[in-house]
Amino acid sequence: MSNAVAQKVLADMQAASFIREMFEKGRRLKAELGEDNVCDFSLGNPNAEPPQAFFDALAAVAAERKAPLHRYMPNAGFDETRAAVARFVSREYRLAFDAASIILTSGAAGGMNVALHAICNPGDEVIALAPFFPEYRFYIEQAGGRMVLVQTDAEFQPDLAAVEAALTPRTRAMIINTPNNPTGVVYTEEKCRELAALLARHDRPERPLYLLCDDPYRRIIYGLDWCPTPVPHYPRSIVVSSYSKDVSIPGERAGYIAVPQSVPDRGLLLGALTMLNRTLGFVNAAALGQRVIARCADALCDVGFYQTNRDLLCGALCEYGYELTTPRGALYAFPRTPLADDVAFVDLLLKQRILVVPGRGFGAPGYMRIAFCVERKVIQRALPGFKAAIEAARARD
Amino acid sequence: MSNAVAQKVLADMQAASFIREMFEKGRRLKAELGEDNVCDFSLGNPNAEPPQAFFDALAAVAAERKAPLHRYMPNAGFDETRAAVARFVSREYRLAFDAASIILTSGAAGGMNVALHAICNPGDEVIALAPFFPEYRFYIEQAGGRMVLVQTDAEFQPDLAAVEAALTPRTRAMIINTPNNPTGVVYTEEKCRELAALLARHDRPERPLYLLCDDPYRRIIYGLDWCPTPVPHYPRSIVVSSYSKDVSIPGERAGYIAVPQSVPDRGLLLGALTMLNRTLGFVNAAALGQRVIARCADALCDVGFYQTNRDLLCGALCEYGYELTTPRGALYAFPRTPLADDVAFVDLLLKQRILVVPGRGFGAPGYMRIAFCVERKVIQRALPGFKAAIEAARARD
Repeated sequence: MSNAVAQKVLADMQAASFIREMFEKGRRLKAELGEDNVCDFSLGNPNAEPPQAFFDALAAVAAERKAPLHRYMPNAGFDETRAAVARFVSREYRLAFDAASIILTSGAAGGMNVALHAICNPGDEVIALAPFFPEYRFYIEQAGGRMVLVQTDAEFQPDLAAVEAALTPRTRAMIINTPNNPTGVVYTEEKCRELAALLARHDRPERPLYLLCDDPYRRIIYGLDWCPTPVPHYPRSIVVSSYSKDVSIPGERAGYIAVPQSVPDRGLLLGALTMLNRTLGFVNAAALGQRVIARCADALCDVGFYQTNRDLLCGALCEYGYELTTPRGALYAFPRTPLADDVAFVDLLLKQRILVVPGRGFGAPGYMRIAFCVERKVIQRALPGFKAAIEAARARD
Repeated sequence: MSNAVAQKVLADMQAASFIREMFEKGRRLKAELGEDNVCDFSLGNPNAEPPQAFFDALAAVAAERKAPLHRYMPNAGFDETRAAVARFVSREYRLAFDAASIILTSGAAGGMNVALHAICNPGDEVIALAPFFPEYRFYIEQAGGRMVLVQTDAEFQPDLAAVEAALTPRTRAMIINTPNNPTGVVYTEEKCRELAALLARHDRPERPLYLLCDDPYRRIIYGLDWCPTPVPHYPRSIVVSSYSKDVSIPGERAGYIAVPQSVPDRGLLLGALTMLNRTLGFVNAAALGQRVIARCADALCDVGFYQTNRDLLCGALCEYGYELTTPRGALYAFPRTPLADDVAFVDLLLKQRILVVPGRGFGAPGYMRIAFCVERKVIQRALPGFKAAIEAARARD
């Protein structure tokens, strides 16, 4: 075993090897058949057109040609961007946030790392709900914490009894993500309120319990006016989010942490978050992205584009006999695999030149994640393959 | 003691309190007297005008209006940016780097965090040379390592006997920074070669010893054609750098790691660095900055601006009797304080409405760091104050 890299890093690289192997298979397939002949649903890379307001803002920012605007600013970000995000977040959460509540981060991923480092003592437990975004384990462990997975119910909604059973004196935080990656589920208003009440019963001054709301998909919802959230109902909530999906600019790493005024010791927490944004090496969210966001902090891409993709894909999958809850938000369908062995079924799809991610990558064997943030024609081209694969699975049974 | 944030974070916040106190004093002074009546030399915020090539590149990038260019790209960065940086770095280090050698990071700070996480096992020792950039301690400890400080010699050059004495079986890496923050010293060619030879004697396959070259000031040099470096002489070197100083855009977080072909197990190391760029929450360096750098990867701001600042400041300080080695690079003068108690002398400067950082912030009590990346007029306005302060110190002795 090589000692050129840290042992834990080597183990993490090897643990991810089946995903990497799948990507490798996909890459070989693309190299062999040409990009256009492979239908790739494996990546959650938002592909809606950014709204006009974004391009206008970028043009305005580029036209300024002012040297000081590319220099270091306070680690929490430009004042004008924090104020613009605060106004947007206040509307979005129906809760008052001021500019001081906002820390601009390198995407929600950067924000989550900063937040976890701010609160986790070594060995602290952080609850995440399975199926789960696998990066959470890295984020939590890097902050010295330990991830505790709690299964969701049959509809992938939080199972509150299971959450309560998982709480221990070492529980420091819980992460939720609604709309959810990978399931596409939107937590109900009732679940959000019940979760808030449950956490409130267990939050004690001597043992503060944070709720980290990983909310980048909040506005990517279908047939809903508003995404329910426990934030207004649980005082010790922290919002971690980004413009990656809203504005469809994930490469720009334009994220933020929003700390409601209800959070006890809020000034101390904001100080810690700001320091960690610096010391973890982010220093500040990139200046150009911040300046653009200051000008279009409530811009939204065409969510209808995703909804049409969802309808086309999910309608066909249901017709072919896939077992599936139609996603109410986010960019993913998460059907059961027709074979109990999700990796085996993903291999059947691969024979149809279709790439998806096996559910076990998200702690949910027997499922698969299909990211529908792709060109419409990719879905159209893939449908016969999805049909053929389920038929092949049935023939095998 | 509040338990709203992690204990280590709280301790770090308190440890930094004297610096924060000083900043607070400065802020109060500015609020009281007006920004323009305080001479602030406390921040290393590069203020040269970015070169025309940067603004041209930014205008070209903004004019493209192509949605896919704002999406996620591979975690190591856009191919074209990696290739452009590789060409630049090859010339700059007189050593062949290919595009695969380059990983784009959130500034050099992001790169240093990624690199340290890639190599440090818990408890591994990382040598840094004092006076030192205080963020190193955070970076090393966050990666699970332990910082071992080694004093430099009387000229702030590496003391090779002291370095050798500090090497233990747990030594995993050494960080160097030339031109140096805070001293402004440029390591000599001879020291670089001797350091390379020393490390080569101690690097063993079963105990690899990395040299991390924190090089963002490499091109900010005065009266030198080229900044000497041990990179071509020590096979297990890793370059960590950025465009923050070269192009004068520190707010954009445009950094990179360059891994020479001489590094053993290079493919594994590059894989670890790429994974960590993702899992630490950076995900990728911001896309806009990358696209700009692809177009101006060898652009350089007007270093003459800083040199004139240096000459004006250091000439006057010497004339007034400050004990000072004139910096050969970077953006800092690092004189001895006329009072042995650097914090007391910094307070005398504060009475002259001048802000600098006491040397103990860099592990060097009895010195102070004066950042001369300021407007020329700030230096001109401050000179009488520097004179008055040394006279006050003499009167006190």
